Amino acid sequence: MPPNANDVRLSIDALTGLLARIFRRNGCSDRVADILAANCAGAEAAGSFSHGIFRIDGYVSTLRSGWVDGAAEPRVLVEAPAYLAVEAANGFAQPAFLAAREAFVERVRENGIAFLAIRDSHHFGALWPDVTPLAEEGLIAISLVNSFACSIPAGATKPLFGTNPFAFAAPIEGDAPLVFDFATTSMANGDVQIAAREGRQVPPGTGVDRNGAPTCDPAAILDGGSLVPFGGHKGSAISMMIELMVAGMTGGRFSFEVDWSGHPGAQTPRTGQIFIGIDPARSGGEGFAARSAEFVRRLSEAGLAAYPGARRGRSRGGADVVIPRAAHDRLEDHAAGRI
Amino acid sequence: MPPNANDVRLSIDALTGLLARIFRRNGCSDRVADILAANCAGAEAAGSFSHGIFRIDGYVSTLRSGWVDGAAEPRVLVEAPAYLAVEAANGFAQPAFLAAREAFVERVRENGIAFLAIRDSHHFGALWPDVTPLAEEGLIAISLVNSFACSIPAGATKPLFGTNPFAFAAPIEGDAPLVFDFATTSMANGDVQIAAREGRQVPPGTGVDRNGAPTCDPAAILDGGSLVPFGGHKGSAISMMIELMVAGMTGGRFSFEVDWSGHPGAQTPRTGQIFIGIDPARSGGEGFAARSAEFVRRLSEAGLAAYPGARRGRSRGGADVVIPRAAHDRLEDHAAGRI
Repeated sequence: MPPNANDVRLSIDALTGLLARIFRRNGCSDRVADILAANCAGAEAAGSFSHGIFRIDGYVSTLRSGWVDGAAEPRVLVEAPAYLAVEAANGFAQPAFLAAREAFVERVRENGIAFLAIRDSHHFGALWPDVTPLAEEGLIAISLVNSFACSIPAGATKPLFGTNPFAFAAPIEGDAPLVFDFATTSMANGDVQIAAREGRQVPPGTGVDRNGAPTCDPAAILDGGSLVPFGGHKGSAISMMIELMVAGMTGGRFSFEVDWSGHPGAQTPRTGQIFIGIDPARSGGEGFAARSAEFVRRLSEAGLAAYPGARRGRSRGGADVVIPRAAHDRLEDHAAGRI
Repeated sequence: MPPNANDVRLSIDALTGLLARIFRRNGCSDRVADILAANCAGAEAAGSFSHGIFRIDGYVSTLRSGWVDGAAEPRVLVEAPAYLAVEAANGFAQPAFLAAREAFVERVRENGIAFLAIRDSHHFGALWPDVTPLAEEGLIAISLVNSFACSIPAGATKPLFGTNPFAFAAPIEGDAPLVFDFATTSMANGDVQIAAREGRQVPPGTGVDRNGAPTCDPAAILDGGSLVPFGGHKGSAISMMIELMVAGMTGGRFSFEVDWSGHPGAQTPRTGQIFIGIDPARSGGEGFAARSAEFVRRLSEAGLAAYPGARRGRSRGGADVVIPRAAHDRLEDHAAGRI
């Protein structure tokens, strides 16, 4: 559809370039700026708005606060034949992941499975851009991240867990990978912020206010209130597993240990990220991707309109992005150093 | 508490011996009988009633139907340095797992992480007895199993997924491991059966009747109706991942491919099981188990009465089991071949 006068249409490359200028201006190295810009523009183009240009103000205020090092140089360590670690050195997680990516894929193929622990990193983006390319190479990939205390464990009374997203990707023969990526809270934090900004209520069960009373007001959740895990005790257990694995396995912080009080404006959790990669070629059964294709065919027959990731897969490949003019102007102001 | 006249109190060892006689009488080898009996008695003793003696009628009818081979000899295969497989040969999953267990633990310690795929197996028990001992050795363990089509994927209209349980265990310094094990359906199938037998309603959102209408009647769910995944789209995605990984990675059946129509009485899904084991000693940070102990201390401070697995851990160690006399008589009848 053509944009109206209140919108701006630009190519993904143009948006990526614009965002990279913003990151560079705020202390990111060229490499980090390019990686974060591509991640953010890709999320915007795919309709993952809570991880798209919406995030730029938060990236900028975080970088300016000195909380994160936009020029950190990640260091890859081999801990065991199938266990790699990356010291992100208080930098962003995506450049750390990309520094280890080739070695990680090699280890997965050699050993059948491999683990990658990213230490002391910040992840402020969607996880599906991290795992999808691994599935495009034929691997199964899981990635987990913890964040900052904003979710009350089922059965508890105080926030302790982060939004703790869970991402999974698997190859589907002849089609886009099956990919999901969701917060293990009732709602992603960015989506609560967007709802608050737009004056929308959130569904019952999303969270509580500062007094612990259930509320559908996103502002009350953000202002001293809390989210809760999705799916009651079971979703809470998944979120607990993520907390324990990511902090424990990376030697990093639990969400409740993230203390950015000395850095006003900081929004990116300084925690860690883990990946598990598996090579299904070792399964010894029929070809995994062919079996997966049968699986999604049956899902479709059972009435599922599209499997997770299918639409994002189809929408890829250089379509333009349309963003509100006011948002675009703000990006230009950021890039030019006017704000 | 002392049992009343309608109850029988016996030691776990005595119950295990009684159950082993039942398994042997119905075609299990001594080894398989002992393993299944210990699993079943342990579940009963821990209060996991849907995987305790409640399961015996189902085990017996399944064994008599010829659907499962109670004397199968599992074969362990090394597919890659960190990827083991076990051909369960249409036998039960637990003996197959135990056949590979020592090699699996070695591979985890050598490589930092390892994968174990059990092929062509039947799992009719709880998963926590499989993963808990791995955490007691200091490892992190995940196990996943798919089952038979009894759950309608979120957004679909027909059952396609199994109850697809997810189990996780992690070491806690100075305490019992943190362990959870739950069906990724709204409720475990065994618990629906128990509710039906006891004439209890199940909570709203548990499932639908044969016409697809939501129902709280467990009999209507079991009689041509269906469960649904826990936690809406997110729980459904987890269940989907389990389906895809377990069937795909073992070369086994998807839940919707399990066809026991030629074996009346069969109740055990013939699918597969996977394990991921990780050695947190490779994490390079502080000691994982010490960090985990801090984590559960904070959970307690946040109001959580007990972390998952804590009570089961404390209740271990040879306490007697009290079971209804009628149930005990039925077990004796099974063991003596009177039914």
